[in-house]
Amino acid sequence: MAKLTSRSEDYSKWYNELVVKADLAENSGVRGCMVIKPYGYAIWEKMRDEMDKKFKETGHVNAYFPLFVPKSLFEAEEKNAEGFAKECAVVTHYRLKTDPDNPSKLIVDPDAKLEEELIVRPTSEAIIWNTYKNWIQSYRDLPILINQWANVVRWEMRTRLFLRTAEFLWQEGHTAHATKDEAVEEAEKMNKVYADFAENFMAMPVIQGLKTPSERFAGADETYCIEALMQDGKALQAGTSHFLGQNFAKAFDVKFTNKEGKIEYAWATSWGTSTRLMGALIMTHSDDFGLVLPPTLAPIQVVIVPIFKGEEQLEQISEVALDIQAKLRAKGISVKFDNDTQNKPGWKFAEYELKGVPVRIAMGPRDLENKSVEIARRDNLTKEVRSIEGLDSYIEELLKTIQKDLYTKAANFRKDNITKVDSYDEFKKVLEEKGGFIYAHWDGTAEEEEQIKEETKATIRCIPLDDDVEEGTSLISGKPSKRRVLFAKAY
Amino acid sequence: MAKLTSRSEDYSKWYNELVVKADLAENSGVRGCMVIKPYGYAIWEKMRDEMDKKFKETGHVNAYFPLFVPKSLFEAEEKNAEGFAKECAVVTHYRLKTDPDNPSKLIVDPDAKLEEELIVRPTSEAIIWNTYKNWIQSYRDLPILINQWANVVRWEMRTRLFLRTAEFLWQEGHTAHATKDEAVEEAEKMNKVYADFAENFMAMPVIQGLKTPSERFAGADETYCIEALMQDGKALQAGTSHFLGQNFAKAFDVKFTNKEGKIEYAWATSWGTSTRLMGALIMTHSDDFGLVLPPTLAPIQVVIVPIFKGEEQLEQISEVALDIQAKLRAKGISVKFDNDTQNKPGWKFAEYELKGVPVRIAMGPRDLENKSVEIARRDNLTKEVRSIEGLDSYIEELLKTIQKDLYTKAANFRKDNITKVDSYDEFKKVLEEKGGFIYAHWDGTAEEEEQIKEETKATIRCIPLDDDVEEGTSLISGKPSKRRVLFAKAY
Repeated sequence: MAKLTSRSEDYSKWYNELVVKADLAENSGVRGCMVIKPYGYAIWEKMRDEMDKKFKETGHVNAYFPLFVPKSLFEAEEKNAEGFAKECAVVTHYRLKTDPDNPSKLIVDPDAKLEEELIVRPTSEAIIWNTYKNWIQSYRDLPILINQWANVVRWEMRTRLFLRTAEFLWQEGHTAHATKDEAVEEAEKMNKVYADFAENFMAMPVIQGLKTPSERFAGADETYCIEALMQDGKALQAGTSHFLGQNFAKAFDVKFTNKEGKIEYAWATSWGTSTRLMGALIMTHSDDFGLVLPPTLAPIQVVIVPIFKGEEQLEQISEVALDIQAKLRAKGISVKFDNDTQNKPGWKFAEYELKGVPVRIAMGPRDLENKSVEIARRDNLTKEVRSIEGLDSYIEELLKTIQKDLYTKAANFRKDNITKVDSYDEFKKVLEEKGGFIYAHWDGTAEEEEQIKEETKATIRCIPLDDDVEEGTSLISGKPSKRRVLFAKAY
Repeated sequence: MAKLTSRSEDYSKWYNELVVKADLAENSGVRGCMVIKPYGYAIWEKMRDEMDKKFKETGHVNAYFPLFVPKSLFEAEEKNAEGFAKECAVVTHYRLKTDPDNPSKLIVDPDAKLEEELIVRPTSEAIIWNTYKNWIQSYRDLPILINQWANVVRWEMRTRLFLRTAEFLWQEGHTAHATKDEAVEEAEKMNKVYADFAENFMAMPVIQGLKTPSERFAGADETYCIEALMQDGKALQAGTSHFLGQNFAKAFDVKFTNKEGKIEYAWATSWGTSTRLMGALIMTHSDDFGLVLPPTLAPIQVVIVPIFKGEEQLEQISEVALDIQAKLRAKGISVKFDNDTQNKPGWKFAEYELKGVPVRIAMGPRDLENKSVEIARRDNLTKEVRSIEGLDSYIEELLKTIQKDLYTKAANFRKDNITKVDSYDEFKKVLEEKGGFIYAHWDGTAEEEEQIKEETKATIRCIPLDDDVEEGTSLISGKPSKRRVLFAKAY
């Protein structure tokens, strides 16, 4: 196996190579669309199952709405339409026919033109609120708390595996409420659910905040988000939760009779996370040897590699290894015993490092004699020899330790890469020399935000939710500001 | 709640009403596409999870391939292309722009025409085999055992909720093998997995068989299927598993070096089931009062309805009911205690009948005194009064009994509706007067098959796998035949 490009050499190249070599995903024959390979998909399934559980625990149910949005519905909410019109796949015909000039080829049948074009959903507010119209008459029909797991398409011009693809998998929650307060509370709650998932399952610390008006979701009154910091000092938006006000209710005429008997428009939220989280996971933990996975998301948590010469030794080791495997499985730990005889132990070690298996157990003839094994941690690459006695409980604890240590490591990295700056010169210097998150004062105008973006490529990632009020003056205009906001260059 | 149309009055109307009233699905604002509502989706999720488990137990892994198939790939396997070209959604553009004549409207941007049209996948053999080309070099890369859960689009002209929709959800397995025998074995194995799922989870008996050449999947050398019989005497194809030979390997040039060092084309299978199974489930068990669900697929297995006057009574009943609920949940049974005070018990009874909840427990003040409850079975509409003592174990057993009884009832219905006929006159008479499955001799030609189809609308559902050889003469041509095949009108 050829080594990966190192992160220090070329971070972007390292990422692309890792995604492909660790069998996570690859580019397909369709421009900008990826194939998610079985190993990558198994990690995504774990993310999905855990988030799905959290959504259900918070009272949500799943449903499924159409892939296509008729153009007339698509354009109903003006800002939303404007935001997505520039990058959407449009279905115009419903049939192919044999090319009369070349019978082995097919052409679009001009007689099968749709009366109204269909947009492949880039997001589903339009189609869903057009449906909710029939579901909502009274306050008794509210709230509606629905989530959908689906594929969506945004015709991005520059794509990268997981981070930005023309088609991606995601979940999108779409809720309807009787009051503004309830909708705001829902949007905030789901942003917290995302933060909890990111921190406790992905071992990825995030900052919760509000987007500035210019960075809001098209059609939202307020966008909450979680922002993570990648190893190369760039930020990644890992999830967003939108308070949509009555914008979609008005666009689709969704009214209900409230408790007081008055007719009102319903209040909305939507919230989403996507396969982009796979990119965030990779760029939070992985290293020059390959993927590093938190145990909660690892399809294989422990691999056992026998080191042997000849069949007899393999048999002896297998007996003990299978016993260890059974004990670990009884504790709910996923284990693979790799008794393949084609590949050498060294090859296997590299392979499981590349794949990010959190714990490797190696066993040779000497280990058999000593009733011991060699345990290697993927996260910090340390090794130790331990007795087989009580190994299952030890591994169980070790997996928890690894999970915690990964979080701590990422949190420390972030701590070291958040800088407070008080002048624009300092801002530019830090951005260029160090990167990372920069806390600075902003005057609240789109003009200053835009100027900073144009001159430095840094954007306001969010106005953090948990920050204290602090008086200051903004970077460029020098106007008074009451709190710092979070800047970074971002994926 | 208005009553459902009865099945005897109008089976088709009954079906459509039931699907909507039981909150399973509804038509959407997009032609031929459905909205799967939360209750319907919860049943589909249970089907999906159970099938997914079975696929993984038989060594398969999940992955995800693009939604779009470029036209040049779509047309590569000629028969497959021919089979799906007439009903496919075609993406031709990737952008909308503001209508210059009407700034509140959007139009397709003529400058954003795709160089090559993209077909929304009606099935994924083409895009997947184009990918497998890069994955398969040696026999060591085989077998590839992949499944995908996805949405697909087939532009059907006449659609019906779940049974035939332009977009539907499904799973599609796509496997690659080094030998023909192994691929045939895989296709047979997965058809058995489907039969096992249908019979043991859907409580729906099925006949396993082979399709005739004219009914095969476009691009397959052999199509295995499971066929179920609906209450109205029509057949429903519930799952298919295809041996694809080397057709796709040849179309996409997927070659490998075999054990003997020779270059060979890979052997393929594909197999699928879809949200159509929801229709099969409904038409196998439900009745004039609404849905009837086998306990294995019921989102709510037991509902507890309190019968009370005033808050004090409700509180007393609640105490006991919550205890019962806790004990049932401890046994892994899903329970809803409906203590809503808006709706009367009679309304609730009708509602849970409509929704197909397998067991209803009713508790009033007299039951409290007697330490008893009333138990109603949804499947056969019987009621009994039982002591609260040991109720959890009783219900646990009852759910198993219901599951078994539903299967038996459906199996008996099918037994009563399979007729052996030996002349074409008898064939037509049985088909018209009784419907159901008809076992008859066929001469093996597409001509006879086609004539019967044209004249009677009955098709050969399958050549059953488990049937004994029996000499006879075919229905029309009178030629000798060695076995009976299964005819029916079908969904």
